[in-house]
Amino acid sequence: MTSSNYNPVTKEIIGELQRICGEAFVYAGDEKKLDKYSRDKVPEQYGHMPEVVVLPKTAGEISGILKLANREIIPVTPRAAGSGLSGGAVPIYGGILLSVERMDEIIEIDDQNLMAVVEPGVITNKLDEKLRDYGLFFAGYPMSEEFCFIGGNVAENAGGGRAVKYGVTGQYIQGLEIVTPTGDIIQLGGKRIKDVTGYNMVQLMVGSEGTLGIYTRIIIKLLPRPTHRQAVLVLFADAETAIAVVPKIMTAGGMVPTSIEFMDGFTFNLAARRFDEDFPYDKIGAALLFEVDGMQSSVVSQDAATIRKICRNGGAIAEYRASTEEEIERFWKIRKRIPWELLRYTPHQSIEDIVVPIASIPAALSGLQKIGRKYGVAVPVLGHAGDGNLHAVPLKLPDDSVEHWEAILPALLKDIYAMTSEMGGTISGEHGIGHKRRDYMSLVMSETHIDLLRKIKQALDPKHILNPGKIFIY
Amino acid sequence: MTSSNYNPVTKEIIGELQRICGEAFVYAGDEKKLDKYSRDKVPEQYGHMPEVVVLPKTAGEISGILKLANREIIPVTPRAAGSGLSGGAVPIYGGILLSVERMDEIIEIDDQNLMAVVEPGVITNKLDEKLRDYGLFFAGYPMSEEFCFIGGNVAENAGGGRAVKYGVTGQYIQGLEIVTPTGDIIQLGGKRIKDVTGYNMVQLMVGSEGTLGIYTRIIIKLLPRPTHRQAVLVLFADAETAIAVVPKIMTAGGMVPTSIEFMDGFTFNLAARRFDEDFPYDKIGAALLFEVDGMQSSVVSQDAATIRKICRNGGAIAEYRASTEEEIERFWKIRKRIPWELLRYTPHQSIEDIVVPIASIPAALSGLQKIGRKYGVAVPVLGHAGDGNLHAVPLKLPDDSVEHWEAILPALLKDIYAMTSEMGGTISGEHGIGHKRRDYMSLVMSETHIDLLRKIKQALDPKHILNPGKIFIY
Repeated sequence: MTSSNYNPVTKEIIGELQRICGEAFVYAGDEKKLDKYSRDKVPEQYGHMPEVVVLPKTAGEISGILKLANREIIPVTPRAAGSGLSGGAVPIYGGILLSVERMDEIIEIDDQNLMAVVEPGVITNKLDEKLRDYGLFFAGYPMSEEFCFIGGNVAENAGGGRAVKYGVTGQYIQGLEIVTPTGDIIQLGGKRIKDVTGYNMVQLMVGSEGTLGIYTRIIIKLLPRPTHRQAVLVLFADAETAIAVVPKIMTAGGMVPTSIEFMDGFTFNLAARRFDEDFPYDKIGAALLFEVDGMQSSVVSQDAATIRKICRNGGAIAEYRASTEEEIERFWKIRKRIPWELLRYTPHQSIEDIVVPIASIPAALSGLQKIGRKYGVAVPVLGHAGDGNLHAVPLKLPDDSVEHWEAILPALLKDIYAMTSEMGGTISGEHGIGHKRRDYMSLVMSETHIDLLRKIKQALDPKHILNPGKIFIY
Repeated sequence: MTSSNYNPVTKEIIGELQRICGEAFVYAGDEKKLDKYSRDKVPEQYGHMPEVVVLPKTAGEISGILKLANREIIPVTPRAAGSGLSGGAVPIYGGILLSVERMDEIIEIDDQNLMAVVEPGVITNKLDEKLRDYGLFFAGYPMSEEFCFIGGNVAENAGGGRAVKYGVTGQYIQGLEIVTPTGDIIQLGGKRIKDVTGYNMVQLMVGSEGTLGIYTRIIIKLLPRPTHRQAVLVLFADAETAIAVVPKIMTAGGMVPTSIEFMDGFTFNLAARRFDEDFPYDKIGAALLFEVDGMQSSVVSQDAATIRKICRNGGAIAEYRASTEEEIERFWKIRKRIPWELLRYTPHQSIEDIVVPIASIPAALSGLQKIGRKYGVAVPVLGHAGDGNLHAVPLKLPDDSVEHWEAILPALLKDIYAMTSEMGGTISGEHGIGHKRRDYMSLVMSETHIDLLRKIKQALDPKHILNPGKIFIY
């Protein structure tokens, strides 16, 4: 599939789209309006302009758009908040960009069944705010909760900072209303915890990056909201010492913390200095940020104390406990600041999302540094140490040229992915393949396996209308 | 598809199977030997004899068998322990019955990555026993743990008594080696917690009832083993009062117990009397069995106390606490005894597996009794009250005729399933569709939805070789 397989969006088609969505909700011709829909949060070179942007409000409208696109052979790229990190929402063959931004209703908080029903355009934090009043919470909670849409979280099976204890987004998705690539509206799952009635289409849709269906309603399992939280920030002289305590927390400590965030010395210092925090910066080789939560203050305190003790015995150089919301947020601010500071450092970077078995984290960290040296780039690392999901961020060094950086990037990524694969890991834990990582899939997946994915795509989307060119090439 | 679409298993084919698996591991001609492979735990009328039984030892052998079957157009029905409750392992079109009983190795307990790797024929309890030494456990734990195979648990996405807190089997399956219906061997997932590299084939395979692939290796996520458990058995005058306390435990109590098992008065008394337990039998209209677990004795005790308090305030007539392993097992014995006692009562029964949103449990319970009265049968109910999964067991009454029972059963089941569907529930939570419930799928699923399942099946198994006639008709 290339763009030459598709037909252009004509005036007549724009007219039909206007009849389906209403004139005000079809953008065409205005470069400025279209521009923001041409990329997500990956660097500009991965972007591509859509021919037309549509903002439907209902599943019925989306069905109409997809039926039209199938008839006219025009690609449709669905988009949530555009905060993705794999180019998943980029309309790489032009065509129709379908934004769910107007489908932003929290339809129901069902506190009897501990379920929420939302549209795909709801911002994650908005749901969280509303759930607070009910003493409930949605455990699938990515780091971009202030702007990401729940529809996008589902499309990429977003992980985030709480996944150690609570798992990823998909674990809480009990039902989906979807529009299939051919325009059928189907209800999958429902307000039920268990379901083995036919294939698990809900979990096939979760993480399918907008290639198998467009979610129009999302049924989310809720949990009682933990009433107590504490955080522990621990500084280490080097990454190896820091990582070595992680499995001990879970085995010797006998607990599963809510979060175990790893920051190497470079990323931690870069962000912490922004907030004028008083840390022994010249000694810091790595930091771990733990969070524990629960229903009982005494247990949460004890868990935090256990973590401190294990870290101290494991060679930490300093630990800081946070027990108020304010103090906890102070620590998280450092962690959340890192991507922005790295971007200030240089826009020539590649935010990676590898996952390795947790016991291979030390080997992965030293492997990443070795690869960095080979190509003459920096490879700072932060990430979710509790689940082996490491955000290595190769960066162009100040004295390196942009040309050199762009020339080496594909080989550098290939080395990182190949190393991950050898360790039994994979190339994306929570950001997705999109088209950024598409051509590297064969490093972690046999051709027979990729063919299996192709067969499923082909079965559901025979004309390759929905988000083509993502995950794999047909 | 009917049996007439398939070719018979000839002497030549048996010869080929013997060359693949070894002569000792191919059973043919001996009715007695074949008989036990003709059914699972559903009544005899759902059984069907295989033409040949094969007991492969490796993925390579299974690949050979499936390639042969595709060439010769012979159905292959995979079988684990045969403890299923939907006819999923019954070779309804004859052909080859493929038993994984020889693939019973626990390949690895990886306590560094908190993962186990097992073959599909491992008995669930055997893994649990082994994990005990490591202070670890596998949270997906069906009630038939003493004989069911892990491969079967995965095929049906088994639930069981701990699903309230820990979820179902699928939640712990991180990787699978499968043989596809056409005989390819593929590695899906791995020892990693997060993975959004292509479609979630692992969870598509989980619960696919042996129709999309045969699992040959299973990678299981393990948790730190809770060091403390307590159980609370609570008796109520009626089901309504019992069920009303369940949501209060989770909302007002602010906890998610490990188990919340419901038994109506009929089933509880039937089983408890077998053990000569001293209960106020004539007053019991329902019973709830709670289990709580954790790492800290004080928390577990407090959780148990909270449950007792909420139950007492909610109108319980008696509560009993168990804090030693022995006492806890004494309570569970009653719960586990029920299916056997119901079978002693009459073999003319149908173990159902409906799921409803938890707030609809009271309505479902009274609806089931109404349906029972309509058809003149008893409908005792037990099940997993915490997740809405109710095992209603319609029974032939002693003075009813077998003919009448058999005549009314399809309409009775249809009424139960239709009621479930109206409540937003479904017809199977953990036992599967198999061929027992196949013809009722349209009560809970649109034809467009079933077609989606068919398309996936068709894409992966174009000749309909693997476990045909299950879940839906092509």
